[in-house]
Amino acid sequence: MKRILFVFLFAFCVMGALFADDANPKYVFLFIGDGMSTPQRMMAEEFARKVGHGELLINHFPSHATTRTVSANSLVTDSAAAGTALACGEKTNNGRIGMSVDGSRRLESVAEVAHQNGKKVGIVTSVTINHATPASFYAHRPSRSQYYGIGLDLIDSNFEYFGGGGFGGYADNTKSSAYRGNLYELAEKAGYKVVSDPEAFHALKPGDGKVLARGCEQALPYTIDGETDVPTLEDFTRKGIELLDNPNGFFMMIEGGSIDWCGHANEAATNLMEVLALDKAVRAALEFAQKHPDETLIVVTGDHETGGMTMGFAGTGYALYVDRLAKQKCSIGRFGELLKKARSAKEDFDFDDACAMLTKYFGFEFSGDGPMKISDSELKTLREAFEQDKLPDAARRVMNAKAGVGWTSGAHTALPVLTTSYGKKADVFTGFIDNTDIANRLKTLVK
Amino acid sequence: MKRILFVFLFAFCVMGALFADDANPKYVFLFIGDGMSTPQRMMAEEFARKVGHGELLINHFPSHATTRTVSANSLVTDSAAAGTALACGEKTNNGRIGMSVDGSRRLESVAEVAHQNGKKVGIVTSVTINHATPASFYAHRPSRSQYYGIGLDLIDSNFEYFGGGGFGGYADNTKSSAYRGNLYELAEKAGYKVVSDPEAFHALKPGDGKVLARGCEQALPYTIDGETDVPTLEDFTRKGIELLDNPNGFFMMIEGGSIDWCGHANEAATNLMEVLALDKAVRAALEFAQKHPDETLIVVTGDHETGGMTMGFAGTGYALYVDRLAKQKCSIGRFGELLKKARSAKEDFDFDDACAMLTKYFGFEFSGDGPMKISDSELKTLREAFEQDKLPDAARRVMNAKAGVGWTSGAHTALPVLTTSYGKKADVFTGFIDNTDIANRLKTLVK
Repeated sequence: MKRILFVFLFAFCVMGALFADDANPKYVFLFIGDGMSTPQRMMAEEFARKVGHGELLINHFPSHATTRTVSANSLVTDSAAAGTALACGEKTNNGRIGMSVDGSRRLESVAEVAHQNGKKVGIVTSVTINHATPASFYAHRPSRSQYYGIGLDLIDSNFEYFGGGGFGGYADNTKSSAYRGNLYELAEKAGYKVVSDPEAFHALKPGDGKVLARGCEQALPYTIDGETDVPTLEDFTRKGIELLDNPNGFFMMIEGGSIDWCGHANEAATNLMEVLALDKAVRAALEFAQKHPDETLIVVTGDHETGGMTMGFAGTGYALYVDRLAKQKCSIGRFGELLKKARSAKEDFDFDDACAMLTKYFGFEFSGDGPMKISDSELKTLREAFEQDKLPDAARRVMNAKAGVGWTSGAHTALPVLTTSYGKKADVFTGFIDNTDIANRLKTLVK
Repeated sequence: MKRILFVFLFAFCVMGALFADDANPKYVFLFIGDGMSTPQRMMAEEFARKVGHGELLINHFPSHATTRTVSANSLVTDSAAAGTALACGEKTNNGRIGMSVDGSRRLESVAEVAHQNGKKVGIVTSVTINHATPASFYAHRPSRSQYYGIGLDLIDSNFEYFGGGGFGGYADNTKSSAYRGNLYELAEKAGYKVVSDPEAFHALKPGDGKVLARGCEQALPYTIDGETDVPTLEDFTRKGIELLDNPNGFFMMIEGGSIDWCGHANEAATNLMEVLALDKAVRAALEFAQKHPDETLIVVTGDHETGGMTMGFAGTGYALYVDRLAKQKCSIGRFGELLKKARSAKEDFDFDDACAMLTKYFGFEFSGDGPMKISDSELKTLREAFEQDKLPDAARRVMNAKAGVGWTSGAHTALPVLTTSYGKKADVFTGFIDNTDIANRLKTLVK
C-alpha cells in the first residue's frame, strides 16, 4: 500500500513539474498605451505618488520586458507598423496596417487567431476605432489612411465587441468608388448592435450579440477635461468583460490611444492623466483576473514613445516638480476653447482677464512668491503670446518648465517600451524582447 | 529494494525543490553605468547594430528590472545618493556618501558586508576613484566633495583592489588640518601596492597583495579619443578577476563613470562609445562566469539618467540616424584642443580651415548633397560660433541634430534605470524594484 502511495507521489511530482504550466490562459488582455514608454508610465506614477494615489498598477506587474519597437523601414516606428508588429508578429513599413513590408501580403493578427480558435474578441480604444493601433488587430490595408476601408474590415472581422471612439477620418470617401454606404449602417446590416449613447451603452448585456459601441463621434474626451457622461476606457473595458465572458474565453485589446495625442502636443498633465485612465482600465482587468486565477493573462505595453518626454529639464536642474501638474485643470485644446469663448463674451477682454484664466486653469501666480510664480520673462512670453493669439501654447510651455518636464520632438522616438505582465504565462514576457515577440507569443497562448 | 528506490527518488525530488537554489553565488559583479538609463543603453545598441557590431550584451541578459532612482530629498537623484542607495540599501539626500539622510549615521555597503564575510573586494571606475559612485562602496562622508576624506576612507577600507582613475579633487585639502599626507603615499604605508604605469599594471599578478592601480592621473581618457596605452575599463576588470579570484570568492563593482560626464555635456557619440566600453568590461565578466557556471552573478544597472537623452528629435521627425554618429572621431573636448593647436600653428587660420577639421572629425559635408550636408542655417551657426570661439559646442549641437538625438538637460533626470542580470540568482532582480533593493538583495547574496 505504502509502495503504491510512493509511486503515486513520485509520479505526481514528475507530472506536476512537466505539465503544471502547460495550459494556456482562457482570458487574455492586451493593453497598449499608444505613445507610452517608461517616461510616460513613470511620470504618471511619480505624479500619483505625490498627490497621494500611490503606485501605478501597470508598473508593478511582476514580469518586465524591455521591448524594441523599430519598424522595417525606420528606427522610429509609427503606430501602424508598431500596431502590426504587436498584433501580427511581423515587422512592416511605417503606414501599413496588417500587411507585409511591400503592402502585398495579409498578416494574421492574434485577435484573428483567437477568434478562429473559438474565443470571443473585443477591441477597445480611447481614440477612433479605425485608427492605426486598433485597426492592426482586424484590418489589412497598405495604408493607415484608408479609414473607410479599415472600417469595412472592422465589419468583416465579425469580432464580438468594438468599444470606445467612433469611426474617424472617412468623410472624404463618400464620393469614392469604394464607398458602399455609411459604416454604422453597414455594421447594423452585418448584425452589429450599434450603440452611441451612454444609456444604451450601460444597458448592454450578454446575449446582445455583436456590439459596436461608441462613446462619442470621434475620440473619447481627455480625462483631464473632467467628468462627462461619456463612458471611460475603464467603462468600455468592464463592459467588454461582461459581454465577452463565455466558456471558450476571450481576447481583448484595449488601447489608451490619446496618450499619444497629447504626447505629440507635448502636454504633460494631459498625458499622465491618460496613463492613469489606462491604469484604471487595467485595474478592471485585474479584478476579473483575481476572480479567475490561473486562467487570466494581462499584458501591458506601448507601441512607441511619443514626444521625447524626459523626467527633467534644463531649467529645473536636479528637480522634477511633477506635483505642480496637478494645478492644470484642462487640456490645452479645451483651454483654447474656453479662452475663445471668454474673449467673445467680453468686448474689452484683456491680458489681465487672460491671466485670471491662467491662474484658474494652470495655477499660475502673478503675485506672491510661490512655486508657480510667473517670472518676468515668463510674463513677457505670455503677454506676447496673448497678443499673437497663441496663449494656450505658451501656457503649455510655461507649465512644462514649472514642472521640469522636457520634450524633444513632436513625433515619436525610438526608445524601447516597457512591457509588464500579470497572471497565467506572464513569465513568457521577460527580458529583452521585440514588439513582434508579443504577437507571436500571444498567438501560441490564445490557441 | 524498489521501495527504497522510490523513497530515495521522492526525497530527492522534494529536497531538490526546496534547496536547489539556496546556494549564494561565489562571485558577484555589479556594473554601474553612471548616467546610464535605457536611452543610453539602447542608443549604443542601435548604433552597434547599424555599424555591424550586433547586440549589446548588457541589454540581453535574461532578467530585467525597472529600477526607481529617486533620492530622499529629490525625484532627481545625484550620484552620491544613488551610489549610496545601490551600495548601502538606504535612501539618503543628494550629496551624501554612505551616510544617512541627516549625515549622522554610517551605512554599511554590500562591499563591506562581502569583505566581512571573507570575500575579496574590488572597486573599479573609469573616472576618479574617489568620485561619488565608487566612494559609496567604501566611504562614509556627509558630502561627496570631501575628496580627501573619501581617499582616507579608501585606504582604511582594506579592500584588495582599486582600479581605474586616480584620486581627484583633493588638491585644496593640502592646507587643511585634516591633511595627513599624499594619498598615494598613505596608501603605500597602509600596505597597498600603488601602480601608475601601464607596464606595471599589466605585470600585476595574484599574490601582489592589496593593489591601488590608476591608468592616469585623473579619469581614464574617453574611448572615442582612440587607442592609448592607458588600460581600459575592460583591462581593469580582467585584472581584477585575476587578482581577486580565491576560494572564498569576490565582490567587484565596476563603474562606467564617464558615461555620465558626456551625458552632462550632451555628447551622443562620446556617450555611446562609453556604454560600449562598459559592455566590453561586462563581456570579460561573462567569460569568467561561463567558466564558473552556477557560481557567478552579474548585475548591470545605472545610477540615474543624465542629460534627458531621447532617441529622436524634432528636426528629424520619424527618423533616428544613429549611424551618423560613427563619423564623429573624437570627443568635443579633444576637438577643442585640436582646434586650439591648429589655430596657434597657423597664423591665418580661418573658417575654411575650421571646416576642413569639422569634415575630418565630424564628417560634416560643406558641398554635395549627402546626409551630412551642412545646411545654410547650420553653416551660419558654425561660422558665428567660430567667430565667437565656440565652435566645438556648435559642432556638438549640429551633430546631435544630424543624428536625431535630443537632450533636455545638463543635469540628471528621474527616468528609472534598467537593471539586467545574468547567472546565479539573477532572477532576484526582476520586475519593478528600487535602487535600494539592489544593495539589500546583494547583501544577502554575498554572505
